[in-house]
Amino acid sequence: MAGLHLHLHLQTNLSRSSSPRPPSAYQPTTTLLNPTRNAPYWDSIYSDIHTHLKKSIPIREPVTVYEPMHHLTFAPPIATASALCVAACEAVGGHRDDAIVAASAIHLMHATIHTHDNLLLSAKKISEPVSEISRKFTPGIELMTGDGILPFGFELLAGADDNENDNDNSEKILKVVIEISRAMGAQGMINGGDDETTDEVGSDQWRGQPTRQLHGCGAACGAIMGSGSTEEIEQLRRFGVFVGKIQRVLSGKGGSGGGEMGLVEKWRGLALKELECFDSKRVEQISSIVNVLCD
Amino acid sequence: MAGLHLHLHLQTNLSRSSSPRPPSAYQPTTTLLNPTRNAPYWDSIYSDIHTHLKKSIPIREPVTVYEPMHHLTFAPPIATASALCVAACEAVGGHRDDAIVAASAIHLMHATIHTHDNLLLSAKKISEPVSEISRKFTPGIELMTGDGILPFGFELLAGADDNENDNDNSEKILKVVIEISRAMGAQGMINGGDDETTDEVGSDQWRGQPTRQLHGCGAACGAIMGSGSTEEIEQLRRFGVFVGKIQRVLSGKGGSGGGEMGLVEKWRGLALKELECFDSKRVEQISSIVNVLCD
Repeated sequence: MAGLHLHLHLQTNLSRSSSPRPPSAYQPTTTLLNPTRNAPYWDSIYSDIHTHLKKSIPIREPVTVYEPMHHLTFAPPIATASALCVAACEAVGGHRDDAIVAASAIHLMHATIHTHDNLLLSAKKISEPVSEISRKFTPGIELMTGDGILPFGFELLAGADDNENDNDNSEKILKVVIEISRAMGAQGMINGGDDETTDEVGSDQWRGQPTRQLHGCGAACGAIMGSGSTEEIEQLRRFGVFVGKIQRVLSGKGGSGGGEMGLVEKWRGLALKELECFDSKRVEQISSIVNVLCD
Repeated sequence: MAGLHLHLHLQTNLSRSSSPRPPSAYQPTTTLLNPTRNAPYWDSIYSDIHTHLKKSIPIREPVTVYEPMHHLTFAPPIATASALCVAACEAVGGHRDDAIVAASAIHLMHATIHTHDNLLLSAKKISEPVSEISRKFTPGIELMTGDGILPFGFELLAGADDNENDNDNSEKILKVVIEISRAMGAQGMINGGDDETTDEVGSDQWRGQPTRQLHGCGAACGAIMGSGSTEEIEQLRRFGVFVGKIQRVLSGKGGSGGGEMGLVEKWRGLALKELECFDSKRVEQISSIVNVLCD
């Protein structure tokens, strides 16, 4: 029963189509993770990303543009992919500040996906409970605002290159631009970074709709910003992909057939294996996410 | 009558909602510019951008993703904003190759706008001739493909930073990422870079629909990639903004009330004024665009 209870919480907090949270009312995601298992760590990450986004997207004139942008940015909870970005940066020894802009950009991608998914769900008339579809604005506004949120993510990123003499920082930001644009572009449409999830669990509910899972991308971007080695970046990317798979199944998006909990257990093992070469102290925090998800 | 004839050509070649051209059948835009007035120059730019895009977006497996992306990328003719990017690069003494990726990225933004505008036009049921709305794919595919084309533009750009030791090139690319993301983001929604057009001509047909004119952005990006000075970049940006205004009116998007030809003449003068400080030989080609548009 504890497991079922947790799954319900996950559905509330992590689903791409969960109901919107008012922009001004950030609440720590204490329901996401067990507080005894490093949840304060994840809460502090969510809070830091939220604060940075609020600062970056104030509601100003003209409100016809900024109010929908603000609302639709904060409609989905901060993406787990964004939190992984920060955690991966810290796992390779980087400072949180180095990753916060990339994490915010990833959340903006997540918000675009969320906004346009709602449009698709409406267009397809998928039998989705009405309460799960945020429809505060007209489809036209949602379309155009989603189109505006996405490039704003890239603007945030490119603008973070505030030291023209720091070649290393420019290179890292360009790498992150490539990572995010790939995840959001054609390649992301094809496999979403972790395409086997749907196939492995045998569900075709979402087949034909691009998923663009950002977890692997988020972890890789964090490792890049934290100046991780190529090997560390790839290990953390794979770790993120497994977290995405696990989250997708546990949030009910990865199919409801039998056998998925076996897969979750398998992915948990594979995810933790990716962290074996790291200093165990350093990855204690980031690894906690799979332990809690699977408990 | 000659003027009317030219306007019809402009509507065919430059309008954002002109009918799609098959991807494999690039035709020089000889109807756009009078061949006696440097049209071969503009044709060669269009052709070079087209070639680069064709190479960058091959139709490959899975065709369900790449075929719509390919089709919707080439549905609108190469954007004038993209051509301005290349011409501005050459006007500041840069090599065409330095600007071709930025010009391609700007066309991908233009293609996203074109694709999503079609969705909006359908959604709003604006009385637009059916033949002007490309509807080869379902709205869902158009939505998601547009979402994929946009980040692909950023991926192309960031990927063009092929020399990790060239700090200057990284900086230029990051500046272009900022320029394009601003033009496509909230700021672009507010004023489209050259927002007075609609107000000045007194038309409100398009009011409420973001325009995101890319001409000023295109010219500025070209000047950045060609290593122009800050002053040159801003002069060429303003030149591009005036070209955008002129094109918008001449293509029928800027209103059909009286007085617009007087405005066109005024903008033509202001545009050419921006080029006065340049070596006249260098800006002979780029300036030809307003002369021909206004003849």
